Amino acid sequence: MNHSALSLLGRRTQAPAISWLMHTALAHPQLISLAAGFTDNETLPVAASRKLMLSVLGSGKTGQPALQYGTTVGEKNLRRLTAERLQGLDQTQARTHSVDRLMITSGSQQLLYMTLEALCDTDDIVLVEDPTYFVFLSILQSRGIRARGIKLDRDGIDPVHLESVLESLKKSGDLPRVKVLYLVSYFQNPTGVTTSLARKKQALAVLKKFEKAAGHTLYLLEDAAYRELRFAGDDVPSALTLPGARDRVIYTGTYSKPYAPGARMGFGILPEPVFTTVEYIKGNHDFGSANLLQQLMVAALASGVYDRHVRVVQKNYRLKAEAMKKAMMKYFPAAVEVWEASGGLYFWVRLPEGNPAGGKSKIFREVLKQNVLYVPGELCYAPDSSRPIPTREMRISFGGASIKNIETGIARLGQVLNYRLT
Amino acid sequence: MNHSALSLLGRRTQAPAISWLMHTALAHPQLISLAAGFTDNETLPVAASRKLMLSVLGSGKTGQPALQYGTTVGEKNLRRLTAERLQGLDQTQARTHSVDRLMITSGSQQLLYMTLEALCDTDDIVLVEDPTYFVFLSILQSRGIRARGIKLDRDGIDPVHLESVLESLKKSGDLPRVKVLYLVSYFQNPTGVTTSLARKKQALAVLKKFEKAAGHTLYLLEDAAYRELRFAGDDVPSALTLPGARDRVIYTGTYSKPYAPGARMGFGILPEPVFTTVEYIKGNHDFGSANLLQQLMVAALASGVYDRHVRVVQKNYRLKAEAMKKAMMKYFPAAVEVWEASGGLYFWVRLPEGNPAGGKSKIFREVLKQNVLYVPGELCYAPDSSRPIPTREMRISFGGASIKNIETGIARLGQVLNYRLT
Repeated sequence: MNHSALSLLGRRTQAPAISWLMHTALAHPQLISLAAGFTDNETLPVAASRKLMLSVLGSGKTGQPALQYGTTVGEKNLRRLTAERLQGLDQTQARTHSVDRLMITSGSQQLLYMTLEALCDTDDIVLVEDPTYFVFLSILQSRGIRARGIKLDRDGIDPVHLESVLESLKKSGDLPRVKVLYLVSYFQNPTGVTTSLARKKQALAVLKKFEKAAGHTLYLLEDAAYRELRFAGDDVPSALTLPGARDRVIYTGTYSKPYAPGARMGFGILPEPVFTTVEYIKGNHDFGSANLLQQLMVAALASGVYDRHVRVVQKNYRLKAEAMKKAMMKYFPAAVEVWEASGGLYFWVRLPEGNPAGGKSKIFREVLKQNVLYVPGELCYAPDSSRPIPTREMRISFGGASIKNIETGIARLGQVLNYRLT
Repeated sequence: MNHSALSLLGRRTQAPAISWLMHTALAHPQLISLAAGFTDNETLPVAASRKLMLSVLGSGKTGQPALQYGTTVGEKNLRRLTAERLQGLDQTQARTHSVDRLMITSGSQQLLYMTLEALCDTDDIVLVEDPTYFVFLSILQSRGIRARGIKLDRDGIDPVHLESVLESLKKSGDLPRVKVLYLVSYFQNPTGVTTSLARKKQALAVLKKFEKAAGHTLYLLEDAAYRELRFAGDDVPSALTLPGARDRVIYTGTYSKPYAPGARMGFGILPEPVFTTVEYIKGNHDFGSANLLQQLMVAALASGVYDRHVRVVQKNYRLKAEAMKKAMMKYFPAAVEVWEASGGLYFWVRLPEGNPAGGKSKIFREVLKQNVLYVPGELCYAPDSSRPIPTREMRISFGGASIKNIETGIARLGQVLNYRLT
């Protein structure tokens, strides 16, 4: 009798794709996890945050507002500092980047969730990179939103495929159900790919082209969670800098990855009417993220602690990524395709055809027997009748493991691959 | 063109009922606000939290986990300490109160939102006290859930009216749409009423009686946000202690009110399948509340700081409530009905018939001209065709204002009432 009291959403919502990975990890205490998207433990800013908290809570004048309720949209200094930071990254002071379009949320995850609430009904369609961030797929699934995958290469989303998918949705009459194109545009989870500005521009132009037939704005939702984790090459301007961005680009970012996941601060730039709608929705969720953590981030940003910490983190991930690359070159068979990243937390590995690496594959189980865990790439693909789900890929993270464990883990993984690949 | 991209939820979601109150407050910088549900600024635990943060962030061993990701369901020590605290309040060690049924959330507000996501579809029905907490009404409205008000007196919800409403819903065929009865059972927002255990027991029995006809469990959602703010009399056991509670009582609590809103920690006890469903939904919202704040609360609870602070807060609110009562007796006309509370943040004031006190009333505007703000009671009533919305009530808070401002504010309010009441 009990189950029938659940809502449709409640009944659709499933265990997260990574639940079984986490249970697997717990069951293998000696495990080297190359699966978790955790950030590096050793570089977490413990001492710096202690000092900052001392100052935030150093007097009633700053401490009382930090421990009191704030506003739904976020603390004004954090909004200002965040907008300024984004203006600096994008080298612009355009109105697209203005503070009144910026909102603070509990991680960028919360903003992704609320944006989908604001825009998508059941059976609406969201276009995603193929593959994409699996928790985003999980939100879509739970809310009954259909996902359509758009091909991705090492330069980002394929605008030609985007256009052909929209064309076919137009023909089938489904175009009015399309609301959003979701891009994890910097060091993508799971592939590590960064979308070039040219590709973002093409994608935005394609969306714009189909708006009239759709009957409404087609939003480009740019998830820049890993943007500040670049350790090589130059930053790419965000889609906010493109012509026409002000009405149709939603940009989400986070301080979790570059500073501290435990402080859980995210932010976003949103156009109207999405901004106000999401603000009201957030009023219903929690009427504003924890003020104390917002004040911590204000102190970190204003004091320069944040900037210094980001450089430490970038250097640390560079060393880890280099170690991983070196180990892969040393231990992996030549037939294995490796997409290395110049930032973020992940390498993407593709085995030759006929070598499944999914959660039930021999390779996965044998690697696990060697106490090494990776994320099967298959978890990152939306269900899509136009193609089978690829199974011969792996997301391999250098974020959480030590350099020593990265070397050992890759060596063991290479051993299995050398033995097993056909 | 833009608006039509919004979802139904997005289009339904409105500005919070209190938005205009907050704008009004901002436009009157000299204002004495008896409206805000803010907690007292002066007693916020600034120095205590500084010390606790020093210890949490005092070493890598405790600091790193605090700054890292945690689990969706919450930090294990905080769950244990919270379950133990609840067992202490309810003087039981029953399995209903066990730690594996307890979840940590970002304020209890987030848990209320997710519980409604898990249980209610559009057009489902939630029974609420009449009047009730207006942000809860706002969630219902945005999600297209129908609210039905159940009469409330100074002993809590009226079980006879509850039964008659369920009976009429059964007759109209709407009973299967009923999912939840929502009770703010301790020092209710807005009336200050505490529901007696006998009333909770009767209400639960009525729900149980209609379950067969409804075809599913009818949940009692007990919002205990103000429970620890008692400053007179004895605590009332929660509905979790009642027979049959384990399958149908959802209990939500918070550390925001008794400790610090800026630390934003809430919790709840949930039966299956609601628990697991809400856990998965939370995975999609934010995969767990900020670890740093969870560790702060662990330190506060384990060290005794929390207990000491709650006593300070209780004493402070007792003094403020006494000052408010005294001022009301001195300045209010005898015809005004005052419901004083023995805890929480609010008194409920009812004017004689024919004296509207709503947001557009003469009384409201004249009180505002005297730089005093209250919450019009009309905001706390669900739309319900079976009765007009009462307009002659006020929610008056002693939480945020100083004793001096409480006295001045009530004196000015009394002046207007003496002049205006008919």
